[in-house]
Formats: sequence, structure tokens, C-alpha cells
Amino acid sequence: MSELRQNIITRDWVIIAPERAKRPHEYGLEDRRKRRLPTYRPDCPFCVGNEESTGEETLRWSDDRGWRVRAVLNKYSALSSAGDRVRHAQGIHRSISGVGAHEVIIEHPCHDLTTALLEVADVANILRVYQQRYLHFKTDPRIEAIIIFKNHGKGAGTSLEHPHSQIAATPVVPSQFRSRIDDAIRYFDDQGSCVFCETLEDELASGTRIIFENSHFVAFIPYAALSPFHIWIFPRRHSSCFEQITEPEILGLAEALQVVLAKLYYGLDNPDYNYTIRSLPSKQEQSPYFHWYIAIVPRINQTAGFEMGSGMYINASQPEESAEYLRSITIST
Amino acid sequence: MSELRQNIITRDWVIIAPERAKRPHEYGLEDRRKRRLPTYRPDCPFCVGNEESTGEETLRWSDDRGWRVRAVLNKYSALSSAGDRVRHAQGIHRSISGVGAHEVIIEHPCHDLTTALLEVADVANILRVYQQRYLHFKTDPRIEAIIIFKNHGKGAGTSLEHPHSQIAATPVVPSQFRSRIDDAIRYFDDQGSCVFCETLEDELASGTRIIFENSHFVAFIPYAALSPFHIWIFPRRHSSCFEQITEPEILGLAEALQVVLAKLYYGLDNPDYNYTIRSLPSKQEQSPYFHWYIAIVPRINQTAGFEMGSGMYINASQPEESAEYLRSITIST
Repeated sequence: MSELRQNIITRDWVIIAPERAKRPHEYGLEDRRKRRLPTYRPDCPFCVGNEESTGEETLRWSDDRGWRVRAVLNKYSALSSAGDRVRHAQGIHRSISGVGAHEVIIEHPCHDLTTALLEVADVANILRVYQQRYLHFKTDPRIEAIIIFKNHGKGAGTSLEHPHSQIAATPVVPSQFRSRIDDAIRYFDDQGSCVFCETLEDELASGTRIIFENSHFVAFIPYAALSPFHIWIFPRRHSSCFEQITEPEILGLAEALQVVLAKLYYGLDNPDYNYTIRSLPSKQEQSPYFHWYIAIVPRINQTAGFEMGSGMYINASQPEESAEYLRSITIST
Repeated sequence: MSELRQNIITRDWVIIAPERAKRPHEYGLEDRRKRRLPTYRPDCPFCVGNEESTGEETLRWSDDRGWRVRAVLNKYSALSSAGDRVRHAQGIHRSISGVGAHEVIIEHPCHDLTTALLEVADVANILRVYQQRYLHFKTDPRIEAIIIFKNHGKGAGTSLEHPHSQIAATPVVPSQFRSRIDDAIRYFDDQGSCVFCETLEDELASGTRIIFENSHFVAFIPYAALSPFHIWIFPRRHSSCFEQITEPEILGLAEALQVVLAKLYYGLDNPDYNYTIRSLPSKQEQSPYFHWYIAIVPRINQTAGFEMGSGMYINASQPEESAEYLRSITIST
């Protein structure tokens, strides 16, 4: 019989119904590692030499080899950086002008070097650019939420191969932020502690779902993971705000992110995935109830009418078994 | 500049950012209508003659031509109909045994006759089976929510071509149900009226987003539609519970559903789509604040890291323009 598990942080129930015939290593459907990309493509707007084909550059991280990471305006931005934030209300309808920001972070000069294949020092550069752009947008009074995310592969919603991530800043607080915070506050009121800290402590004590840990970060598959190989990376130190990450933490997160993505790359044949950084709304500061983290979701199964109609997910894998498999994959950093 | 709109029912904000170059009729990427399926496939488990290859039959709707609609147990059910509903709590973890139900509704004997191509009388048969199975599961004390949904096409999560839908009954109330109901109650408390009735009245007064209406149902693209051609079909009569649909309403809904799906079929070249019926948790009865409805979501764009990280959507189409296009497509029933 399957089992329903509740995610204590999101309060979502998930149906854990492992397909008995499928073992973790069988989730890699084809050997996509063999389809290694070229280091350079003359027609790629993000490759070296094509800097003028991107949107305006807002930040560049360079060393004596040239630029290593660039932040540029998204040419197909859904939100405009110019203009006032104007609210309209007419009858039952509410709207707000589409102001905010939408930038692309070009993660590395080489077309083929996705995070799984990078040096940890290179990943740290990407994270520093995330932090700097986040701090920049945080000063804009029109902005309420800043979302950092990465789409890797066609199945994850990108057609651009060159390694990149995105940062979007919205003029409203998304309702998903509100409901997650409300639930964390309720837990804090009931239990007197941070639900994220409690989860981290529980995962470390059990150990069965841990994938990787270092002195600053812990990566694990949640007890009620919504989909196969869904991974959370939590900072050990309680902090509500990603942008307040310290320099030693940046190095720890760079290592954790690189190792975890390399384990997916080698263990599941370079699956498509999304990741996102979950932090507080940008005008909120530290609080005892919320804890920022990174969520990584390999795009292994497809959502359909059941998920749409219920908001519940069916996970055809066993989190403990998937974590054991990823632990067994050795990555040397 | 784009515009953010709030869905007054779900409280979700959506970024309406129409791609100026793309007109509504261009969403049909290829002429999938030409790939008409055969009427019968000997290897299809849902085709006539292969009745023994399905799960156990739970309902059959027949006339002198033979069976017209069948309900059968899902052979790959995520939830088991046998066993007790047992809750476990250990530390911070909560789980429930995977009891409930999961059935497939085989909508028609012919392999090729999807709803868009059916007679209205055939669609009414499908709806009557939905209602009967819903009423059956409603009596099960272990069941809290009943979700009726359809996955049409590979992009919507089905590999089976033969027209079918599904009904799943879960031993918990999904958190999505709770938050939608909570928001409806809050609206009722603040405004003294049903937010769904208010929305329907507003859509009828404006008319710009209406796709089809008859004496019992109204189909429209919501003001803050999450994705292109996202459609809601509302009953005109305030009722919280799908299963209390009357016989004249079944005929009205059959017509509305058939016409709307035919408009998508001919207007967008048979797109993949999901639909779901949104009703109250199965142990709740009529209430003044909740109104059941059907949501249809063509799988035209892909969600990615932004949607995952924010819960917000970017809709690259203008709801009013999409509705005008679908209104212009004539369907004779």
C-alpha cells in the first residue's frame, strides 16, 4: 500500500507510491552525458565575443582570464525597470503596472560548463553575483519579492543551452510566499521554534535522507518530497534572508550546490532541473520563524490533472532509497 | 509594459505579458487534427473487445449499441480501496495509509472520439458516470476529497490515447482545497456574497472574456488567467457541490464542455489539456460561500523556475483577445 506523508513546512500531503520495478539509477533514461556540448558556439548570445547580443550588462565579475560571470538585463523581460508602481482597482478587478526587474546571470564564459562540471570557486562567483543583485534590488521601494532561479534543460523550460540563471523582482508579494510564512508563524506560535530548524535537526538525527553536508549547509531529500529526487539545501545557521549569507557560507553553499548537482548529473544522466532560492519578501528582515533555503527539482515526472485538481503530488519514488543512491555517488571537488 | 492582475478567487497574481508578435490562432503549432486516430486499435486496453484487460469494472452505461461509458479500477492505482485509514505520527512526521480510490472512466467505445468530437448526449453520459461514482465515494467514511480530472495528450501527462478521464478519492483534504475555501469564506465575511457568483456576474456584465453560455453554464477566460486559454466553466445556479448537479444542468454542462473543447480543438489544433472539477471536500455540504466549477488548462506553455519559486505565472497572452478568438470559432452541436 502507498503512504501519504505531510510536508511539515508547506503542509502539503504527498502520495509516496514507489513503482516497485524502478530502481533509482533507472531514472536516467538515456546517457545524456555523452551529448556533451561544445565549449563555444558562435551563434550563442551568452558566449565570449557575443557580449553585445545580450541585454545591457548590470554586473561583471572578472579576473585576469576575462569575465567569469555577467549579469545582464533579460531581453524578453516580463517586468519593466522603468515606471511607477501604479495600482488600479475597478469593480472586483485589481491590477498593478508591470514594474520590477528581470535579469539573466550568465554563469560562466564556457558554453558547456554547467554547475555540475564547474570548480567550486566558479560556483562561489555565481552566488556572489546573486547576492549583489539581490542587495541592489532590495533598495528599490517598488519591489516586494526577489526570486532567483535556474532552468536547466528544455524540460525545465529553457531553450538556451549556455549555463545561466535568472533573477526576477516583482512589485507584489506572491501569495505562495504569504502562505508559507503564515504556516511558519503558526508553527512558531504553537511550538516556540523555527519549523525549518526543527526539520534540519530531525534530518541530521535520522540521516536516512541526507545527501551531502559540510560545516555550513545540509542537502537532503525531504520526508514528503513532491517528486523523485526533489532536494532541499538548508543553511545550518538560522537566517531568514539569503542576501545576508556570509563569505564562509558562500563557499560552503558553492560546494554543496556543486556536489549535489554533480550527483544528479552523474547519477541520473544530466537530468533537466529547476532550482530556486526561497527567502523572505525583500522588505522583511530577520525573523525567528523563517529560514531561507534552496529547492532543487529535477524534471523527472510530469504533473497532470490530479496535481492540478488537488494540489497534491504522487511521488513514484521512496525518498530514503533515492537519498541512499545519491549518497553512493562519489564526487571529488 | 506588462500588467499584473489578481485572481480574486485564488488571490494569485499573474503577469499578463502578451508577446506582441503572436496572435491567438498561432498557438496551434502544427495541424494535429490531421493526425486523426483510428476508430479501433486491437492493442488498446480501452477499446471494445478488450474489456478484460482493464481493472475491475465498477459501472457500465449501456444502450442497444453496447456499452457507452465504463468506470474501471485504475490498474496502476496510487490509492488502495482496501484497508483502514491509519494515521501515524512520529516526531515531526505525519503519515496516513494510502487508502482511497482511483478509477478510470472510459468515455466512449471509439478510440478516436475525444470530447471535442462527441455528440452532446454522449458527453452527458460521461458526466452522469462522474456524478454516480462521486456519490458512491462520498459515502466512504475514509474519504475526504474526490477529484475528477482528465489528461488529454502526452503534454498533459497521459500516454493512453483512448479518451478517458479519472476519479481519485483521497483520505485527506488537500491543502489547496483548504486555502481556496478559506479565501472564499473571508470574501463572504467581508462582502456578504459568494466570490464566484460575483465573478460570474462581472464576467457576464463585461462580456469580453466570455466564450460560451447557455441557460445553465457560462464558460470564460478568467480576468487573471494563469496561462493562455485557461478556461473556467461556472454553473449559473449557486451550488457548492458538483454531485448535486440536476439532470437539466447535466445537459447544459455537456453542451458547454463539448462546445468549449471543440473550440480548442478546431481553434488551436487539438492542444493537450487537463480539466478538473473543483468542488467542496466530500463530507461538506452546500454552503453560501463556495461554488463548484470546471477548470480547463491547455498545456501550451511550460512552467519553470519562476513559477516554482514564486507561485506566480507569466501569461504571454491577453485573456480578452484569446476569448474573442474562441468566440469567433463556430461549433454546431
